[in-house]
Amino acid sequence: MLLSDVGEFGLIERVAEIVGGDDERVVIGIGDDCAVLEWNDAKYLLVTTDTLVEQVHFRLDWATPEDVGGRAIAANLSDIAAMGGTPLAATVSIATPPELAVDTVEELYRGMQQVSAKYGLPIVGGDTVKSDRWITLSITVLGEVKKGNLLTRSGARPGDVVVVTGTLGDAAAGLDVLERGTGTMSPEIEGRLLAAHLRPEPRLREIQLLFDSLTPTSCIDLSDGLASDLRHICTASGVGAEVELEKVPISVECHNIAALTGKPALEYALSGGEDFELLLTIPPDSVGDLPRLLRATTTKVIGRIVDDASIVTGVDIEGNRVALGKGYEHF
Amino acid sequence: MLLSDVGEFGLIERVAEIVGGDDERVVIGIGDDCAVLEWNDAKYLLVTTDTLVEQVHFRLDWATPEDVGGRAIAANLSDIAAMGGTPLAATVSIATPPELAVDTVEELYRGMQQVSAKYGLPIVGGDTVKSDRWITLSITVLGEVKKGNLLTRSGARPGDVVVVTGTLGDAAAGLDVLERGTGTMSPEIEGRLLAAHLRPEPRLREIQLLFDSLTPTSCIDLSDGLASDLRHICTASGVGAEVELEKVPISVECHNIAALTGKPALEYALSGGEDFELLLTIPPDSVGDLPRLLRATTTKVIGRIVDDASIVTGVDIEGNRVALGKGYEHF
Repeated sequence: MLLSDVGEFGLIERVAEIVGGDDERVVIGIGDDCAVLEWNDAKYLLVTTDTLVEQVHFRLDWATPEDVGGRAIAANLSDIAAMGGTPLAATVSIATPPELAVDTVEELYRGMQQVSAKYGLPIVGGDTVKSDRWITLSITVLGEVKKGNLLTRSGARPGDVVVVTGTLGDAAAGLDVLERGTGTMSPEIEGRLLAAHLRPEPRLREIQLLFDSLTPTSCIDLSDGLASDLRHICTASGVGAEVELEKVPISVECHNIAALTGKPALEYALSGGEDFELLLTIPPDSVGDLPRLLRATTTKVIGRIVDDASIVTGVDIEGNRVALGKGYEHF
Repeated sequence: MLLSDVGEFGLIERVAEIVGGDDERVVIGIGDDCAVLEWNDAKYLLVTTDTLVEQVHFRLDWATPEDVGGRAIAANLSDIAAMGGTPLAATVSIATPPELAVDTVEELYRGMQQVSAKYGLPIVGGDTVKSDRWITLSITVLGEVKKGNLLTRSGARPGDVVVVTGTLGDAAAGLDVLERGTGTMSPEIEGRLLAAHLRPEPRLREIQLLFDSLTPTSCIDLSDGLASDLRHICTASGVGAEVELEKVPISVECHNIAALTGKPALEYALSGGEDFELLLTIPPDSVGDLPRLLRATTTKVIGRIVDDASIVTGVDIEGNRVALGKGYEHF
């Protein structure tokens, strides 16, 4: 049997069975956005890691090395945000062909440094090795979280509302701009979509703002797409969910490219992935606090958690259930 | 300018300049076996990461996937030992071609699990992504160290003695067995050399034993070879070193393959690399305690630290200075 037969999530399940095991220092192991370790009386230590492969996850003819580096750091920081945490330190490993220009590698690290400096994340170590042909970039980010603020995928309860921290689909739309080539829409529109794809912003500030007056019950970062990531929350929490499709926030720019490509804007939003917005669940009695926070962030209510775990569905404006589609599959 | 022009250490210097920066939480950043972060009054947090690329660092026709996985964990644990630390948790990222057999990946993780379980290291997370052609394995290990036990590369002082925790050159000799094909020496000899290469033992227990009665001033793990790694200690500490070549511990098995290949046994020992023994410096007044510890471990005195930083040399049995040669260069 090949990896392509079992897929990413099939593989993760098998791996987790092999390496799983009890350890009193481990609060959460494989299966959430970060691993969670005991740190001290007040805080947990968070660990997350992401690997990016050239020609699979990025192309240097589509993105500058700075953008690739910055985006790789941002993706890891998004995982820290999804657990309610703040950044602590990063290590960066790079495998590159020896015939790569030193300038290219320096630009990659400059892009990482810019984003990590912006969010207070020192890069403290790493490894540099030779590869056969393509660059592989593997980043590990440590974070910390107050014990009372820890958010996982498994705390959603029936009746909770589902919220997202920003418009969805822009990153996937930006990838379409790169694939089609620029110049078919206005430079402003293309620029905003490209920025969403190339320079995503981890929601570290937003999640701390939400803690001020809300008590989120679960959280995940939208890396694989709403359809897939909401399923992760539901599976881990043993609940279902209904998404009111007309409430899913979609940007004007995403509607623009949808009109051009003929692919529904909602498909970008539900299946696109890599928006790095957060998907949270919040108790219904907190919803009253959202309007004030909505001004400070771009958080929107898009649905609710239901008791029946077999239901993870969209609901259209007429109340009909509509499939949410699939997310990004890595193999 | 290409990476092959500046080499691994040239690249690390450039990278360290880009990502360097002060942060009060960072005790030691890029440039030692682990990064060191503030944790609490009693302890520091250690972070180390290693990336292994198929066909560059391992071949699945020479090593079983179990051996590759176990060795990757051991190499990271060796970095924790080199800082005087004990293991805390690991993350594992793997990039693999989709047409790889699931069994192969499971065996890799089984090998990692065996070694990590042996040393009390839970594997708590990771990433699984698609690669173009070869496997890239990137492992990050966290450790902890009592503040008083922290060992770095920079504490060696003139007059200190240089010690190593075991025989050197066996791992390189084991690689030669693989390259030449087995069957030219006795199965016992080949088996011992292959084990040194494929299943190295991180010196976690030995370093804790040494703390009981010695106060090491600096430490590094022998991953690039004695010649190269001793230079790292000397550069970081601003000192020189003389190695008494006849005292470098070399196994009977290594002498056996040297007789067969015509390559001097000392060359295996000085330039071979990946033995994952520790190289330590110890104040001369502690040397009296070594004999007792020598029975418990295989630690041997091989030289001494000198004031003149321009001298990092071997000394032969007649007192003549002899070049130590080069270590492993990654690009």
